[in-house]
Amino acid sequence: MNIGIFGTGMVGNTLATKLVSLGHSVCMGSRTADNEKATQWAAKAGAGASHGTFADAASHGEILFNCTSGGHSLAALEAAGAANLAGKVLVDVANPLDFSKGMPPTLSICNDDSLGETIQRAFPEARVVKTLNTINCQVMVEPSRIPGDHDLFISGNDAAAKSQVKDLLASFGWERIIDLGDISTARGTESYLPLWVRMMQAFGTADFNISVRKAQ
Amino acid sequence: MNIGIFGTGMVGNTLATKLVSLGHSVCMGSRTADNEKATQWAAKAGAGASHGTFADAASHGEILFNCTSGGHSLAALEAAGAANLAGKVLVDVANPLDFSKGMPPTLSICNDDSLGETIQRAFPEARVVKTLNTINCQVMVEPSRIPGDHDLFISGNDAAAKSQVKDLLASFGWERIIDLGDISTARGTESYLPLWVRMMQAFGTADFNISVRKAQ
Repeated sequence: MNIGIFGTGMVGNTLATKLVSLGHSVCMGSRTADNEKATQWAAKAGAGASHGTFADAASHGEILFNCTSGGHSLAALEAAGAANLAGKVLVDVANPLDFSKGMPPTLSICNDDSLGETIQRAFPEARVVKTLNTINCQVMVEPSRIPGDHDLFISGNDAAAKSQVKDLLASFGWERIIDLGDISTARGTESYLPLWVRMMQAFGTADFNISVRKAQ
Repeated sequence: MNIGIFGTGMVGNTLATKLVSLGHSVCMGSRTADNEKATQWAAKAGAGASHGTFADAASHGEILFNCTSGGHSLAALEAAGAANLAGKVLVDVANPLDFSKGMPPTLSICNDDSLGETIQRAFPEARVVKTLNTINCQVMVEPSRIPGDHDLFISGNDAAAKSQVKDLLASFGWERIIDLGDISTARGTESYLPLWVRMMQAFGTADFNISVRKAQ
């Protein structure tokens, strides 16, 4: 499958590398066509890997991943171009974390809104699916590194888009994916980040996830 | 042990009943001394159960539980009286949920503050411990209703107070309690509520909890 990745940071790099390893053709997009990190990634990842502008990545992909930092996501998606996003599955992995006051971060969007919804409103023809934003990128692409069963969440207005993303996540090894409902439920998973960050600080590692357990 | 409970709702009732069943002397406090729900509870709970005003409950208890709704907690604690709270362990079970716009609720305090911190600032001589706010009251007092291992969080500035609360929680059956740090970490657990509420809506039950799993 042709996939576009927005963002050259650790999350974009990790997801792009995983997708290439699974045989997909992946274009990593950034603000400029000659971004150093994207160039290095494409050279190292080899066959199936390419890079370009946000618009190049958006044109290339049938499925797109927003791996930019939350504060820059809207600008990146605008650079990608609404026409290039229209009708496509846009997996929003970002969190609206604001580190301007140091650690732990606050959220730049929260409570009665979410980044996922903001993106869906700004690009109504994109089929936005919020997922993977509750875990570190190593866990995203290798859920088996966490022992036992543990859960991922998914939110979005388009059932077919969520289904397609679930299939892709299953190819990463995700067996348990909780569908919370429409894109407004992204408020729930984005709002979990302040707890995630404090657990990360208490544990001294980001290599964890939660397993939801119900009474029987 | 003498324990004071602020609040006559389902959370206060469930915790008060559990504490009486464990042999503690529990006074349930509310705005008025003749509150109908508190009177009924005390009559039904029997020996060890009493009721009165918020100030009565605060005077009675060595450990106090704030089980009022988050929007009313400060007023209730003011009615209890700062002098009656001074030096005592105050377990803050409440969440600042705002249902004024319907379901799901928003948070009336969030992001760069929390209810737990607000209470600690307002009553600096109280030893505030935030815990139990990430689960339904049935799970609070009977963790074994959830199969397998699952976790509770605790936040507070006073290590001895947290230790005392952990002992009390152990008597409920809590084996896994994650100490997130000082009271500012209550931002993490209160911020989890929007995810909890959406899981509750997706599952159709509040009878669940999360288990934190780390890579090995």
